[in-house]
Amino acid sequence: MPRQARRAGRISPFHVMELLARARELEAQGRDIVHLEIGEPDFPTPAPIVAAGRAALAGGNVRYTTAAGLMPLREALAAYYHERYGVAVSPGRIFLTPGASGACLLALGLALDVGDEVLVSDPGYPCNRHFVQMVGGRPRPLAVEEDSDFHLDAAQVEAAWSPTTRGVWITSPSNPTGSVIPAGRLAALWEIVEARGGFLLADEIYHGLEYGCRCTSALEISDRVLVVNSFSKYFGMTGWRLGWLIVPPGWEAAAERLAQNLFIAAPTHSQRAALAAFTPETRAELERRRQIFAARGRYLYQALTGLGLRIASSPQGAFYLYADCSAFTDDSETFASALLEKAGVAVTPGCDFGRHRAGRYLRFAYTVDESRLAEGVRRLAAFLEDVSK
Amino acid sequence: MPRQARRAGRISPFHVMELLARARELEAQGRDIVHLEIGEPDFPTPAPIVAAGRAALAGGNVRYTTAAGLMPLREALAAYYHERYGVAVSPGRIFLTPGASGACLLALGLALDVGDEVLVSDPGYPCNRHFVQMVGGRPRPLAVEEDSDFHLDAAQVEAAWSPTTRGVWITSPSNPTGSVIPAGRLAALWEIVEARGGFLLADEIYHGLEYGCRCTSALEISDRVLVVNSFSKYFGMTGWRLGWLIVPPGWEAAAERLAQNLFIAAPTHSQRAALAAFTPETRAELERRRQIFAARGRYLYQALTGLGLRIASSPQGAFYLYADCSAFTDDSETFASALLEKAGVAVTPGCDFGRHRAGRYLRFAYTVDESRLAEGVRRLAAFLEDVSK
Ligand SMILES: Cc1ncc(COP(=O)(O)O)c(C=O)c1O
Ligand SMILES: Cc1ncc(COP(=O)(O)O)c(C=O)c1O
Repeated sequence: MPRQARRAGRISPFHVMELLARARELEAQGRDIVHLEIGEPDFPTPAPIVAAGRAALAGGNVRYTTAAGLMPLREALAAYYHERYGVAVSPGRIFLTPGASGACLLALGLALDVGDEVLVSDPGYPCNRHFVQMVGGRPRPLAVEEDSDFHLDAAQVEAAWSPTTRGVWITSPSNPTGSVIPAGRLAALWEIVEARGGFLLADEIYHGLEYGCRCTSALEISDRVLVVNSFSKYFGMTGWRLGWLIVPPGWEAAAERLAQNLFIAAPTHSQRAALAAFTPETRAELERRRQIFAARGRYLYQALTGLGLRIASSPQGAFYLYADCSAFTDDSETFASALLEKAGVAVTPGCDFGRHRAGRYLRFAYTVDESRLAEGVRRLAAFLEDVSK
Repeated sequence: MPRQARRAGRISPFHVMELLARARELEAQGRDIVHLEIGEPDFPTPAPIVAAGRAALAGGNVRYTTAAGLMPLREALAAYYHERYGVAVSPGRIFLTPGASGACLLALGLALDVGDEVLVSDPGYPCNRHFVQMVGGRPRPLAVEEDSDFHLDAAQVEAAWSPTTRGVWITSPSNPTGSVIPAGRLAALWEIVEARGGFLLADEIYHGLEYGCRCTSALEISDRVLVVNSFSKYFGMTGWRLGWLIVPPGWEAAAERLAQNLFIAAPTHSQRAALAAFTPETRAELERRRQIFAARGRYLYQALTGLGLRIASSPQGAFYLYADCSAFTDDSETFASALLEKAGVAVTPGCDFGRHRAGRYLRFAYTVDESRLAEGVRRLAAFLEDVSK
């Protein structure tokens, strides 16, 4: 039998996957489970996007697009950046990819050599460290806490920077915390990174899902950054697998060559469908959904804090709350299992997002409607009462 | 400005892309161009697949699938392997990926550590060496020629194996040559590789497009190999971005974890559409197309050899002929440019596939109908007459 790569052995499974499998088992046995662990919107893809996708398929003429993607879509995205953030991004710097996942891989392929180190936050999106390892780089997790709203801080990055550090990866709004990095802190981060000739990789996949605060794009700070985004979350297109990467000026040719080799192209009909993402009708629908997410977040925040869980700040973005349950447990993984078995509520334990104080935390996703949220809260309340006895 | 990875600088552009851009320019000026450079079928996706894809989109409920893909599709593929090759592959070993491209990346992520060497053929599919470099490995091209039908040979691999060699990558039918590796040679290769604890990665993306010979799957030799395949070529689904990887027994858990991290999942509606790839109606259509490709290949082979180009063997597979044009030039890249400019025929120069004797060769793709092929041949004949004067 051939030997597996060491890389393959280093990937820890997502605990939430086991939890999900167990939840499905319980459901198959007739149990009702409230799913608060799902990281994708519960809304279907907006109708105009679906219609455009179906129309694109109609003739069956579904060929490869160019590696960078359809120019009209790159232009639509450029216009979107101008309108939304007031920045000028030439369409030539925008590359359509198979999801933000593909964009992360492309970005690291362009920016990272074997042995180079990337600073990431702990807790943070767990795939990031595996993307870094995939290209032979070394992820270096830096602990972040409530006091910094779970985002890397300029001083922290400055102190951690080593001769092998090549860049910093931030995700705002964050997964798992939903917290948004303020513009000033983003600028301070970039100053440190730029002075060291490093790269800043900004995952902005949850932009648009922001509540009572405005998400700053890294492109507002500088055009010499790498920005990852996607149609998955805000635009409700997870299964379509379409994201994008924006590269610094001058990197276009290398990005195009690498994209050709890695992906050939992003899905054609998903690209055609996404052209309908910027119509007034779609936008109105997305705004309506944003308000629903906002209301759910407010409700869940009140309810959870009311039950004695601590949450650093009211909901800022994405559809996650990261709740400190240390009043009840210091082993959130076991706690999450028990919550599923006994109360039929599925949530994600902190250990899926890193190690730093992971045992204290649970991630709650508000990707179910308010009545299910309320049911989940009722069950959690009863469960906590039992635990506290 | 952040510094780019060395990897990014090492990627040579596809010359055919420049040629294609120039062809589009000429077309915009009103010139008629015969395209014999396109590496995808000219047929639309079969109607039953399109219908299934459109139906899957209808409700807009296009969520992530599990990382490995929809179980019914994995089961359909397992049944296909049993029927077609007589091998038992458990569905759990089959992973749906974003194209064969995604499958190649997943395979290398599982099998290759930083610094490990992979033996590849020169000429060969150019992306392969960049996939290897992407994960920090080192592609080692071995020259192959007409005498070995452009496939790596067991003795050659045995001689080339070094302490850092980890595996061998073969593609049969080959891109760019279309040649098929015989079962006996495949078995001999595996024997060498297995004895050294290495991996065999078999790209079988052109299986099904085979003419007068039968393609052997590496799985018929052993189940401890990595097999890449795709719905792109034989099934006519290039733009849908759906492929698959089959892993050795015991590798399932690692493959699932890595796929979760790298891709999340392959496109959902493409997976649902592909469920219709195995119906009698689709199969009949694919067989009809195969016969059309076969007839085109025969025609083009006769025509090109009649004009004094040398081709190692009559068409065996894929939709490519790799023609030795050394009777006319030893610089096929310049020759291809002139052929485009003067005669309006686009073909791919050998330098896109490696270095070994690349200047002698041109790849002709028979992905246009016979009347266009005939027009291309007429123009080529006139061009060669001019050149020979
Ligand atoms: C922070 C973050 N980045 C990237 C992704 C990848 O998303 P996709 O590939 O669907 O665009 C996700 C998905 O959950 C995410 O949470
Ligand atoms: C030999 C070979 N392998 C893999 C691929 C990738 O195909 P896809 O990602 O569309 O499945 C191609 C495409 O041209 C190819 O020729």
